[in-house]
Amino acid sequence: MQPMFTGQVLPIVRERAGGAVLRTRVLRIASMAESDVDQAAAPVYKTFTNPRTTILGAAGQVELHLTAEGRSEAEAEELIEALAVGIRQALPGRIFSEDGRELPEVVADLLRDQGRTVAVGESCTGGLLSARLTDVAGASAYFERSIVTYSNRAKIEELGVDAGLVERVGAVSEEVAAAMAEGARRVAGTHIGVGITGIAGPDGGTPEKPVGLVYVALDGAAGTRVRRAVFPGGRERVRYQATQVALEMLRRGLLGLAPL
Amino acid sequence: MQPMFTGQVLPIVRERAGGAVLRTRVLRIASMAESDVDQAAAPVYKTFTNPRTTILGAAGQVELHLTAEGRSEAEAEELIEALAVGIRQALPGRIFSEDGRELPEVVADLLRDQGRTVAVGESCTGGLLSARLTDVAGASAYFERSIVTYSNRAKIEELGVDAGLVERVGAVSEEVAAAMAEGARRVAGTHIGVGITGIAGPDGGTPEKPVGLVYVALDGAAGTRVRRAVFPGGRERVRYQATQVALEMLRRGLLGLAPL
Repeated sequence: MQPMFTGQVLPIVRERAGGAVLRTRVLRIASMAESDVDQAAAPVYKTFTNPRTTILGAAGQVELHLTAEGRSEAEAEELIEALAVGIRQALPGRIFSEDGRELPEVVADLLRDQGRTVAVGESCTGGLLSARLTDVAGASAYFERSIVTYSNRAKIEELGVDAGLVERVGAVSEEVAAAMAEGARRVAGTHIGVGITGIAGPDGGTPEKPVGLVYVALDGAAGTRVRRAVFPGGRERVRYQATQVALEMLRRGLLGLAPL
Repeated sequence: MQPMFTGQVLPIVRERAGGAVLRTRVLRIASMAESDVDQAAAPVYKTFTNPRTTILGAAGQVELHLTAEGRSEAEAEELIEALAVGIRQALPGRIFSEDGRELPEVVADLLRDQGRTVAVGESCTGGLLSARLTDVAGASAYFERSIVTYSNRAKIEELGVDAGLVERVGAVSEEVAAAMAEGARRVAGTHIGVGITGIAGPDGGTPEKPVGLVYVALDGAAGTRVRRAVFPGGRERVRYQATQVALEMLRRGLLGLAPL
């Protein structure tokens, strides 16, 4: 289909368009609500009529589609860039991609370029973060191992999480997330460790620890940081959003926007 | 949309259909080529004009859609069942679902019903099998832990795979797949262990061990079985198909169609 389109259809469409060219650039932002992205970006993009901007929200990701019409590709790209500059300023450090790459690819490229390695200890996400990190070709350059510690015993045995700690604060806690990230990094001997623990649902929630509660921890030379989030949506969405948070924390740390 | 459809649209459609009822049942088969399924099933379904049968193939899964028209739901279901009986005989033990369930749910239900637990040691699939097994609600009943051993060192340290064996036969081999399954089961203390090792690509292939080569091992009380496969398609498809093979081996073992 693609050669048919580019060879036969596109030239006809081009001629009928009378020389006008449409270009679209997609700005991607992770683990930020659509309303928050729009609140920051709308004051900028609303002052432009060319490009037009469309905002698209999905679980754990928001996209701004900037579409410009010009007399040439270069002119359309210039018009897009004029708006993109403003949006970047409105969302400092939050746009992870403008070139079509998804978040795992961006993180993979950063890890590879910096020669850094990562290990994962994940619970409620059940291997999804590892699967996403290794979905990128050449993952063996930065991905060492991952331990999916679904049971408490596995957390204790595999990641050296203190049994007393689990008893005291519960498996879904800031402290255990941190201990999992530290354990993954120590056991695997990598530069970075990631820990994820939470309640993906639909069962297992309590008033204090509701379904959707997730702790994501990042451990590196600069110490351990933990982010707490309560995600809406069903099991699949909660798990996916948790991996987006972890990837975004990795990205920010690797870019020096946060300690790592 | 759904209440609008069932409340307002459906009654009108029903009246216009003049009392005729259409019913569809989907028969799902895992890790079997579309052409092989069709070769077995076509001689049966081609003798029927009602139901009509459509075959749909995707990576690692084939679906037979049986659609019957009757004067009532019961009649349509009877017509479907008359054909389904024949297809079941043509594909003995190969249909994993006729009720809408996907393969991980079927395996999860079998594990839960039998009170059996599973642990996974996976390499090229990078956590995808674990993610699919834990995507089902209540996975903690049967899923203990998983170790994603991407590096050779991780295979040796985490799963007790013999370093000399890896050196001798290579990480992508029948022997290492078996050792990973045995190691996962021993380390986690579960009833069943699964091991997966292979070359997801796009790089890393050789003439002897091409991209797409995967070994899947299942270890249980009855010993260890290994299946070798060479999957077509890109990285994502290779990984997905490998998890389908593992799930189908689990299903057949749990149903007593193969030793486990």
